[in-house]
Amino acid sequence: MSQTVRQLKFGLFLQAAGHHVAGWRHHEAQAGSENFELIQQLAQTAERAKFDMVFLADGLTTSPDSPASVVARFEPITLLAALSKVTERIGLAVTASTTYYEPFNLARLLASVDLLSRGRAAWNVVTTSTLSAAQNFNRDQHEEHGIRYERAEEFVEVVKGLWDSWEEDPYIVNKTTGDYIDRNKLHTLNHAGKYYSVKGPLNVTRSPQGHPVVIQAGSSDTGQDLAARIGEVVFTAQQTLEEAQLFYSSLKGRLQQYGRSPEHLLILPGLLPVIGKTEREARDKYEYLQSFVDDSRAIASLSERFQFDLSGYSLDDQLPDIPESNGRKSRPQLLLNLARREGLTLRQLYKEVAGARGHRIVVGTPVQIADHIEKWFAGNGADGFNIMPPYVPGGLEDFVDGVIPELQSRGLFRTEYEGRTLRENLGLPIPVNRYTRVETK
Amino acid sequence: MSQTVRQLKFGLFLQAAGHHVAGWRHHEAQAGSENFELIQQLAQTAERAKFDMVFLADGLTTSPDSPASVVARFEPITLLAALSKVTERIGLAVTASTTYYEPFNLARLLASVDLLSRGRAAWNVVTTSTLSAAQNFNRDQHEEHGIRYERAEEFVEVVKGLWDSWEEDPYIVNKTTGDYIDRNKLHTLNHAGKYYSVKGPLNVTRSPQGHPVVIQAGSSDTGQDLAARIGEVVFTAQQTLEEAQLFYSSLKGRLQQYGRSPEHLLILPGLLPVIGKTEREARDKYEYLQSFVDDSRAIASLSERFQFDLSGYSLDDQLPDIPESNGRKSRPQLLLNLARREGLTLRQLYKEVAGARGHRIVVGTPVQIADHIEKWFAGNGADGFNIMPPYVPGGLEDFVDGVIPELQSRGLFRTEYEGRTLRENLGLPIPVNRYTRVETK
Repeated sequence: MSQTVRQLKFGLFLQAAGHHVAGWRHHEAQAGSENFELIQQLAQTAERAKFDMVFLADGLTTSPDSPASVVARFEPITLLAALSKVTERIGLAVTASTTYYEPFNLARLLASVDLLSRGRAAWNVVTTSTLSAAQNFNRDQHEEHGIRYERAEEFVEVVKGLWDSWEEDPYIVNKTTGDYIDRNKLHTLNHAGKYYSVKGPLNVTRSPQGHPVVIQAGSSDTGQDLAARIGEVVFTAQQTLEEAQLFYSSLKGRLQQYGRSPEHLLILPGLLPVIGKTEREARDKYEYLQSFVDDSRAIASLSERFQFDLSGYSLDDQLPDIPESNGRKSRPQLLLNLARREGLTLRQLYKEVAGARGHRIVVGTPVQIADHIEKWFAGNGADGFNIMPPYVPGGLEDFVDGVIPELQSRGLFRTEYEGRTLRENLGLPIPVNRYTRVETK
Repeated sequence: MSQTVRQLKFGLFLQAAGHHVAGWRHHEAQAGSENFELIQQLAQTAERAKFDMVFLADGLTTSPDSPASVVARFEPITLLAALSKVTERIGLAVTASTTYYEPFNLARLLASVDLLSRGRAAWNVVTTSTLSAAQNFNRDQHEEHGIRYERAEEFVEVVKGLWDSWEEDPYIVNKTTGDYIDRNKLHTLNHAGKYYSVKGPLNVTRSPQGHPVVIQAGSSDTGQDLAARIGEVVFTAQQTLEEAQLFYSSLKGRLQQYGRSPEHLLILPGLLPVIGKTEREARDKYEYLQSFVDDSRAIASLSERFQFDLSGYSLDDQLPDIPESNGRKSRPQLLLNLARREGLTLRQLYKEVAGARGHRIVVGTPVQIADHIEKWFAGNGADGFNIMPPYVPGGLEDFVDGVIPELQSRGLFRTEYEGRTLRENLGLPIPVNRYTRVETK
């Protein structure tokens, strides 16, 4: 397939009870974040549509009030390992926090999934900022935002260093001489930094794509800087094309100073599509889903989200001024902008957030959804999207059977995978091993 | 199937380059600890033979001198997750160290594999004592033996507590009322101990077998005490029936004080079978394998194993007196006994260890191997064995096609799985959830 025309990239943000908080209550919905058959069906549907990857979020806590998709679920690294055996070509992206893992363990787990899938793994690098997570890891408070990012950056440096432990093709396996591996292709990292001392080497070799693809989701200024240095895919929440364009140009503009090319970082905003045969049917479907949203916990939930006590306010009040918090910085700002721009009451804001957690919701026919996607793509607001079906499997099937063919007919999306690894399909370079000497290439 | 006669239990100790250090050099051998197809074939062969489980060891380091089976390999938890999708009934046991994991992360990973496999997971609890591992985890020395065990015990307590976070059948999924889970079935651990503070709850529900089966491999006095409290399967290295019987009665004798029944802890010594159609053929095969053992690193390797400098000795010397070390305590003692009993030189000891790392090697026809197994089983030296094929896949196929039918014809081993979970097949009880009130049962 010729790649003369820039092509869309798609992730399936896989939540097996749907992305809409009440999506599981849709009469056609199935729900089961611990139902492997359902998850397998979703991944295979995305693969049939030639999506670049399935994407799994993660969380280190739960409570009886957690949404259906996350109250209980498979641990995502083990889930991807299982999915690697029931899929062939689709990428497998997993979120894992640098805050509560040891870099050696995480480097190993991810390298192993990358090998099991023959070069289809990606790692969404996040930090964890909630007190409830800290309390599962022997701590009574979480780290300050800046330190968390500094540690994250060193963590990624160590992980990438460990992923370079082995050069390509280290196996000799000569039964006569007894040489099993090429000793010269195994390297010791000897990392000694501010936060981590990790000697290495790693006991997993490189996959066909070199390293798992690195995904970054931070949209704050600190987050963008980190993304510009280490990110190859960036997930982001953007409500308007103007905001998306600003973010897109700001982030892509930071790449040159790190010697990176703009096409080697792909920006994929989240998109929750609500699809109907007619616009009216789509709007009815959205209203139907919204009718299930219980706003009895709205004040508590918004207070948690903004890390600001809203208990003195009524659901009919507008959002007051809210100071910066030490938690996630970019998402609250986005919601603040949204509430101000649309003049939303707290109830309206809560119901909007319940739908897509701040990601853009688009309601319409397959052609209207495709128009939206093409407009953002052509307008340099996005390189593609992370698709968040409001309920499953129907919400995904509507997209795959309606929107994808429309985009293919416009020449904007592949009809067959270009390669066998995730990097090949995303058009990302294989990282050069730091130990591969120039003269041996 | 009637269970009136006590039945053997078998694990396949899966090493995809074989257990004999030079097994991969056998002309029929395949080798590939990163070759999923080979590993899948081995697991499916063991399942065809109705083995109780496949068992994966683990290690947190490597070097160019590491044996073929471990120099590079899949991370075992992700490997088991992948194997759960290409097997149906066989148990999936994985080794994971309490020394360098966070209990919350490990509890989650293992619970997830247990769910993915529908109740077929087991966890081999180990501690890690090597300096080279410590150096991969920000430390410059490893912990003292006693503290490592004390921490391990609290670690297991936390993990089991997290595994009780959810009572059975917590899903309601009522689309009309909006009740997704039964809030009363989710519990917060609030563990605050000497080494760990972990609040909980875990965000993975219970599998059909309740918890993963807990395996313990420590054979020292401290290790036996821990096994008596928490172990459900014990892997051990035993060279003679007399030693095995002593260990068996010593460990089973410790169970009553913890209110446990002797049949709820199964003792499986390692066994490396070298099988031929005739005894002569088997002996020739063993000699052939031994002929590949390179003893140029014998002194260095034995020094490492005993944590004692043997560089002043020659390969023709006998083993000198060696003081207790801070590392693994039981295996060096076993090798010391072996060397004394057989009057081995350092070269002979090294070659014996190279074969099976201290585990018992039995060389003979299928009937002779079956005789050995029956003698140890009937003589209360073992409840079954962890089978260590010297090379693969032939070494496993010889056992499966020769020894297993012989044991089945003697009525000592199943011809069909009794149940769908590992606990059902091993005859182990489902752990009662600590939060399940008596009146609700």
